[in-house]
Amino acid sequence: MDCVAGYSLYVDLIEPLITGTPTLRSGMMREVERVEAAIATACGGTSCALISSGDPGIYAMAGLVFETCKIKNIPVRSPGAPAAGGLNEAALVVEVVPGIPALCAGAALLGAPLTHDFAVVSLSDLLTPWDVIAQRLEAAARADFVIVIYNPKSKKRDWQLGEALKIILAHRDPQTPVGIVTGAMRPNQEVRIVPLQELSEAPVGMQTTLFVGSRSSSRYLDFMFTPRGYSGKYAIR
Amino acid sequence: MDCVAGYSLYVDLIEPLITGTPTLRSGMMREVERVEAAIATACGGTSCALISSGDPGIYAMAGLVFETCKIKNIPVRSPGAPAAGGLNEAALVVEVVPGIPALCAGAALLGAPLTHDFAVVSLSDLLTPWDVIAQRLEAAARADFVIVIYNPKSKKRDWQLGEALKIILAHRDPQTPVGIVTGAMRPNQEVRIVPLQELSEAPVGMQTTLFVGSRSSSRYLDFMFTPRGYSGKYAIR
Repeated sequence: MDCVAGYSLYVDLIEPLITGTPTLRSGMMREVERVEAAIATACGGTSCALISSGDPGIYAMAGLVFETCKIKNIPVRSPGAPAAGGLNEAALVVEVVPGIPALCAGAALLGAPLTHDFAVVSLSDLLTPWDVIAQRLEAAARADFVIVIYNPKSKKRDWQLGEALKIILAHRDPQTPVGIVTGAMRPNQEVRIVPLQELSEAPVGMQTTLFVGSRSSSRYLDFMFTPRGYSGKYAIR
Repeated sequence: MDCVAGYSLYVDLIEPLITGTPTLRSGMMREVERVEAAIATACGGTSCALISSGDPGIYAMAGLVFETCKIKNIPVRSPGAPAAGGLNEAALVVEVVPGIPALCAGAALLGAPLTHDFAVVSLSDLLTPWDVIAQRLEAAARADFVIVIYNPKSKKRDWQLGEALKIILAHRDPQTPVGIVTGAMRPNQEVRIVPLQELSEAPVGMQTTLFVGSRSSSRYLDFMFTPRGYSGKYAIR
């Protein structure tokens, strides 16, 4: 790769792996210009890796690449698609490389909260109206999904988690286990499990992902898990 | 690792990586005995890797390990937990190693369908009553989640996808893009995008994962993506 673009903190994290490669670093909230710069670089013939933490397709930059190319009328194709003729000849080759998202890293640290149906909701109302987020939380809580919550809190967004809790508590037992994972797989990693009713007092920050159990999720010693239903069908003794 | 346990097909897939290591292979529907054998092996002092395809915590074997240990009263601890004293001294060390689930591998091949809130539902009613599955589909469709569907069809389960489609079509435009990914990252890989109303005629099998777009998901050339909302807030030209 001829160039690596990303949020400064993430570029710093992979520094030892990319020594000598030119980088395009930018700060938080600079997503649009970061993606535009990466696309412009690639269109100019310099291959460019746009990095995210976790998986680039889960609340991350991959979506903005396609959105931007569509708006700017830049034709794109996957590496496997034939280049021969027409639009594809000049198309920008875009490959999304999947990774391990925070929902998988966090679940693994907690045990196995996601072995049955789950919903993933971001509490960030910077780009999504709160009423849409509230409706999704309500629907997920009512239909007994395990709920994974991204972006539960930041310095400026401090009331959303409390509202989310009220919505979920209307449909879940206050003792429902909630996994709290901060900085998964990083040096500042912290993992704990609390009952739903105590979540409001637990430490939750910018790097935290929450896992709210379904009605069948269960705690066992320092782990939480969601049974798939085997013990109801088969004898385990 | 002293032993590798898994569904025969998955053990075959990693054969070149584990030459010489004893294996415990078992067939489909043999999950309970496979997990019991792996736990018994590990409790006997032989370390055992229980493998799944994708991520072991997403509709896979990790949950059954904790469920079985809880029922059998086998104490467990994570590798990081102190072993000193009490229950932990004799506890079985269980480490869940996260992987790239089909929902990430498939999303990457399609473009970026999961860059906003999504719900994940399995259509398998072998262990979950159909009315629970139907309620979850209804809730996810109504609240405008992107919907990832695992286990859409098998030889014996042939009507569930049609029912799911009816439920979703009550809340989504018939032209909504649906990503169909079969055998992601395997030699038989197939990727296509069809309008929701044509899904019933598309080839869907045991190794297929479906990605039903939300109201804002969009198609661009051979890709589909779900915008996070940047273009509504920032000018992209």
